[in-house]
Amino acid sequence: VGDHGPLEAELAKVGKAPANVRVVASEGAIAMDAEPVAALRRNPRASIPVCVDLVKTGEAKAMVSAGHTGGCVAGAMFGLNRLPGVRRPGIGATLPSLSTSGHCVLIDVGANVNCKPVNLFQYAVMGMAVSQLCLGVTRPRVGLLSIGEEDAKGNSLVKETFRLFRQESAFDFKGNVEGRDLFGGGVDVVVCEGFVGNAVLKVAEGVSETLFRTIREEVKAMGAGGGSPSAALGGALQRLRARCDYAETGGAPLLGMDGHVQICHGRSDARAILNAVTGAIRMVDVGVNARITEVLAAHAKAG
Amino acid sequence: VGDHGPLEAELAKVGKAPANVRVVASEGAIAMDAEPVAALRRNPRASIPVCVDLVKTGEAKAMVSAGHTGGCVAGAMFGLNRLPGVRRPGIGATLPSLSTSGHCVLIDVGANVNCKPVNLFQYAVMGMAVSQLCLGVTRPRVGLLSIGEEDAKGNSLVKETFRLFRQESAFDFKGNVEGRDLFGGGVDVVVCEGFVGNAVLKVAEGVSETLFRTIREEVKAMGAGGGSPSAALGGALQRLRARCDYAETGGAPLLGMDGHVQICHGRSDARAILNAVTGAIRMVDVGVNARITEVLAAHAKAG
Repeated sequence: VGDHGPLEAELAKVGKAPANVRVVASEGAIAMDAEPVAALRRNPRASIPVCVDLVKTGEAKAMVSAGHTGGCVAGAMFGLNRLPGVRRPGIGATLPSLSTSGHCVLIDVGANVNCKPVNLFQYAVMGMAVSQLCLGVTRPRVGLLSIGEEDAKGNSLVKETFRLFRQESAFDFKGNVEGRDLFGGGVDVVVCEGFVGNAVLKVAEGVSETLFRTIREEVKAMGAGGGSPSAALGGALQRLRARCDYAETGGAPLLGMDGHVQICHGRSDARAILNAVTGAIRMVDVGVNARITEVLAAHAKAG
Repeated sequence: VGDHGPLEAELAKVGKAPANVRVVASEGAIAMDAEPVAALRRNPRASIPVCVDLVKTGEAKAMVSAGHTGGCVAGAMFGLNRLPGVRRPGIGATLPSLSTSGHCVLIDVGANVNCKPVNLFQYAVMGMAVSQLCLGVTRPRVGLLSIGEEDAKGNSLVKETFRLFRQESAFDFKGNVEGRDLFGGGVDVVVCEGFVGNAVLKVAEGVSETLFRTIREEVKAMGAGGGSPSAALGGALQRLRARCDYAETGGAPLLGMDGHVQICHGRSDARAILNAVTGAIRMVDVGVNARITEVLAAHAKAG
């Protein structure tokens, strides 16, 4: 989905478009610095709303976008229904961790910066569905992101949510966790409000990128000095870097909407987009949305 | 400052206490899982309030604590005056970065989880004082932590603060920054609300610890297989690790109070405490508090 001219020109560069690729024309894009709601109102023919429409009408089972995150969220909120029982959608990012599955789901990383405890409860349900169905974790352990492991710490949202989660039999609540616990392997799902989640995600990327850059320079400097760091070490570092690379998971699903939206990093390369498309197909195939609906319905009935 | 018995027993292990060490007896401590305000009311003879009293009366120029962070903040708020013009204190952490000074000051990392734009403005002033006087940055570049670099992104606190900062001539405002920009070197001071700042700080620690652990294992595994990673590489990694280690900076100052409080990590070792003591002395010597007072007074006059 995009402006017809530029897209056809890109496709022409690689010869004919593959048989399973169809170009749907849209007009312009939601600019990265635009206020998304106003921009969507101004241009309902932009690529994001046109893409959402394809999902709404069932022509597409999922959409993948590396455009304006807020634009994707607002576009989905305007164009699609929420899943039954869902108050607000959340974006769930899959991060590398030392857990058995090798991953931890952090939700929300930026769909919603104005949360209530019930939103965080629903994020836990969504994160668990991803952990179970996409990462194979039988009984995901859920943590609540706070600024200390003790019950009494945190802001008022976290304190209220802690009390709510403690009463929940719907999931295995491990209590408050701190940022470092995201990677330690003690939890499979970490729940937080979208501003904090997004800040945390970007910091994690920043630290790992900076460290890898510095290590690479150290290794290079040693090589130049006649040291012995081998190609093998370079390979090991590269494998490790790949595990930490956002491009490997390729995007994060917007969860809670009736239709699948996969949101990618603005600077995604071809590999990231490929992985995001594969990830979106998987989300649809394993039935994450059906699971979320089912758990929320059972919870509403029990409660 | 601490329980007389255990402290004397520890000192006895190393022979006589050095001449410049005096033991001040207190009774018990603020438990790590306690609600700090209630705990301080219950036990005004605990180590934190007794320590604060020494600063208040001028017997000590600074206090250093690896105890309950909220307890230190609340103890200081009860026992000390705020600097003239300061609304709320903030904790300023010095993080490694690729900037010229090699560091970036992140403020607040947990003193205050309920912020207004004016608090964030004052944090900028405090962070700048540290950047100038302790890190030698002539004109610190200030960023506002948000979830996108564009003006329109963020929660309502960040959007309001952005508008306030843009009008400020008191500092070199670089606009919104994302988590990854903390380390990239483009800013010297990053301002945020305490819940986000604390979460971000802990995530940064978690990522670097997990990466270093994984790299160490990779290097070890290669060594066992007859590979060539040298002791030199081990040394390089160790130096890099030291730069990222919280123990190197040894603690973060609680800024904005009339008296110096240096807050350390709960799991500080001897080296971290030594660095925190050195850091606290430096904060007093360079006159960070006088600078904060001066800038706020000039600002109030101009405004």
